[in-house]
Amino acid sequence: MSVPATTVTPPLVDELDIVIPTIRNLDFLEQWRSFFQPYHLIIVQDGDPTKTIRVPDGFDYELYNRNDINRILGPKSSCISFKDSACRCFGFLVSKKKYIFTIDDDCFVAKDPSGQEINALAQHIHNLLTPATPFFFNTLYDPFREGADFVRGYPFSLREGVTTAISHGLWLNIPDYDAPTQLVKPLERNTRYVDAVMTIPKGTLFPMCGMNLGFHRELIGPAMYFGLMGDGQPIGRYDDMWAGWCAKVICDHLGLGVKTGLPYIWHSKASNPFVNLKKEYKGIYWQEEIIPFFQSVVLPKDCTTPQKCYVELSKLVKEKLAPVDPYFEKLAGEMVTWIDAWNELNPSTDGSATTQVKKTEAAPKKK
Amino acid sequence: MSVPATTVTPPLVDELDIVIPTIRNLDFLEQWRSFFQPYHLIIVQDGDPTKTIRVPDGFDYELYNRNDINRILGPKSSCISFKDSACRCFGFLVSKKKYIFTIDDDCFVAKDPSGQEINALAQHIHNLLTPATPFFFNTLYDPFREGADFVRGYPFSLREGVTTAISHGLWLNIPDYDAPTQLVKPLERNTRYVDAVMTIPKGTLFPMCGMNLGFHRELIGPAMYFGLMGDGQPIGRYDDMWAGWCAKVICDHLGLGVKTGLPYIWHSKASNPFVNLKKEYKGIYWQEEIIPFFQSVVLPKDCTTPQKCYVELSKLVKEKLAPVDPYFEKLAGEMVTWIDAWNELNPSTDGSATTQVKKTEAAPKKK
Repeated sequence: MSVPATTVTPPLVDELDIVIPTIRNLDFLEQWRSFFQPYHLIIVQDGDPTKTIRVPDGFDYELYNRNDINRILGPKSSCISFKDSACRCFGFLVSKKKYIFTIDDDCFVAKDPSGQEINALAQHIHNLLTPATPFFFNTLYDPFREGADFVRGYPFSLREGVTTAISHGLWLNIPDYDAPTQLVKPLERNTRYVDAVMTIPKGTLFPMCGMNLGFHRELIGPAMYFGLMGDGQPIGRYDDMWAGWCAKVICDHLGLGVKTGLPYIWHSKASNPFVNLKKEYKGIYWQEEIIPFFQSVVLPKDCTTPQKCYVELSKLVKEKLAPVDPYFEKLAGEMVTWIDAWNELNPSTDGSATTQVKKTEAAPKKK
Repeated sequence: MSVPATTVTPPLVDELDIVIPTIRNLDFLEQWRSFFQPYHLIIVQDGDPTKTIRVPDGFDYELYNRNDINRILGPKSSCISFKDSACRCFGFLVSKKKYIFTIDDDCFVAKDPSGQEINALAQHIHNLLTPATPFFFNTLYDPFREGADFVRGYPFSLREGVTTAISHGLWLNIPDYDAPTQLVKPLERNTRYVDAVMTIPKGTLFPMCGMNLGFHRELIGPAMYFGLMGDGQPIGRYDDMWAGWCAKVICDHLGLGVKTGLPYIWHSKASNPFVNLKKEYKGIYWQEEIIPFFQSVVLPKDCTTPQKCYVELSKLVKEKLAPVDPYFEKLAGEMVTWIDAWNELNPSTDGSATTQVKKTEAAPKKK
């Protein structure tokens, strides 16, 4: 008798979408083919909608340009940024999957110290499917990893951990620096492969980068709004930071875990530091007030869904950050629009986050 | 003209003591000779004081056995544990230096992935002399390390960091597991070299292991009391955990940093899990109440020295943990005795931590 060929099904192949914001042909996908091809891609085309984006053959994808976004969201499309990678969150909105992996189109396959190509997606999936440990620090890093465990003195009652909602991956080669650091250290490259995944403790904020990021869309997707950036806005390059601050305080409130560390991707090109400085400079001083704000956020106990949390957070943003700049009042408004759009496109996940009024609105459904 | 020979002075050679608790000949020092020989050693001999401990030639050391401890501390010697490595804190008490490195005598020189021997002491010194960043997480780990920096989104106002008080090193080969984990995974060895140093965020507790530990004695020494363990006590193997919980909440209160990660040492032998279980079992369930206690500790603002903090903490231990077991009432009392002993032997560092009464006590000074 012949042994039947074994087909290994890639993990979560029917439960995960890969979201890619772009303005160019997606040749970078060639390098990722063996890892990404089994998965569905959602491509969010930024900029000129008449431009044709070439996607290499063999990939299963849907592509949305600005015209599509406007058509699908109608007046609610105001919450989706234009001419900024913040537009990627539209992909989170239209996905119907449980998990998202999002990656930038200047990110390539990195190699581990043994020279093996790193399947970043597989590592994110592993991170997301194993628990996180936000309540106590484990000095040997991820206790759920092969060859590691909880160390002496780790409370046994905390060893089950909590569900992981976010997996934040890192970058070899070009580090994710702000414009001032880029200007000061133009030649610095990240060559250090740190072989670790760890949970960011409860109560601690972190700078979330959207370049190489996995998350549990059902549990935290509504908090993964990348804000108002780019065209017509006073700020750029804070889209992922905004999402990270919001998502972390909501994960902490809901008892969900956030991990950072592996996997690495190879970040190929540094963006122009002068252009970046122009985009960032307001953020650089605003964040000095934004961070203490997020550090002090306390959400009410009855906020039991990410939608409810996010709407509550929008009220606090309006109250506490609008005095910093009128921009935050506008942003707070679009945070609510975003949740309205989320609930409209994802009616089954609407955990009564918004008021009954919203549900009775005669909003057009996505075809 | 001949070029004069350059002598490289080891860092902090006059400002750091190496503290080693032991019950055996210190042959393990041979492997450490090139790294430790320039430094002064304080050896705390546990167990039978009539036994002679052999120290390899060429090391500069002072050695204290139980008779010495009793003679120097008089009635206050009750705070120093017997037949347990907790006795190591006596070495912290009698040191006159600014920094301490403490190591167990079953810890040997580890090698990094390139095969180079790791100078653990030099790495601890580096960790202690560079700032820590407890208020916000840096995803590229230690921003003060060569080739790394703060990433985009890290608030500039927090980039100066704070003084590092504790440097917690790790272990290759035998991981620091509790008895149940040792029993379940007798063959597990730590082979993963994680090339990172990181700050444990403010508000997060960690399991501090005393095997490979550096700290700033002037800033946090009074909180480095290893508790009552071993002979005549209902618990063992929680000496370093106790010190870690106390020291972390006090570091958080005083705005000091705690780092963990590099350096690794090679931990050679696993202790007997059956013996360990007997020592640990009360700790294993007590810690389920101790950890929430430490997580909730708030120290008064006027506690501005480690001594003041520690005395205040002893009161809270008495109030909140004595109901768990009468042991904690005894421990709370010895915490105060420890501070009295500290101030007696270190009068210049007595930040008016205890009452004036203590200063007028006619306690014998160390010769």
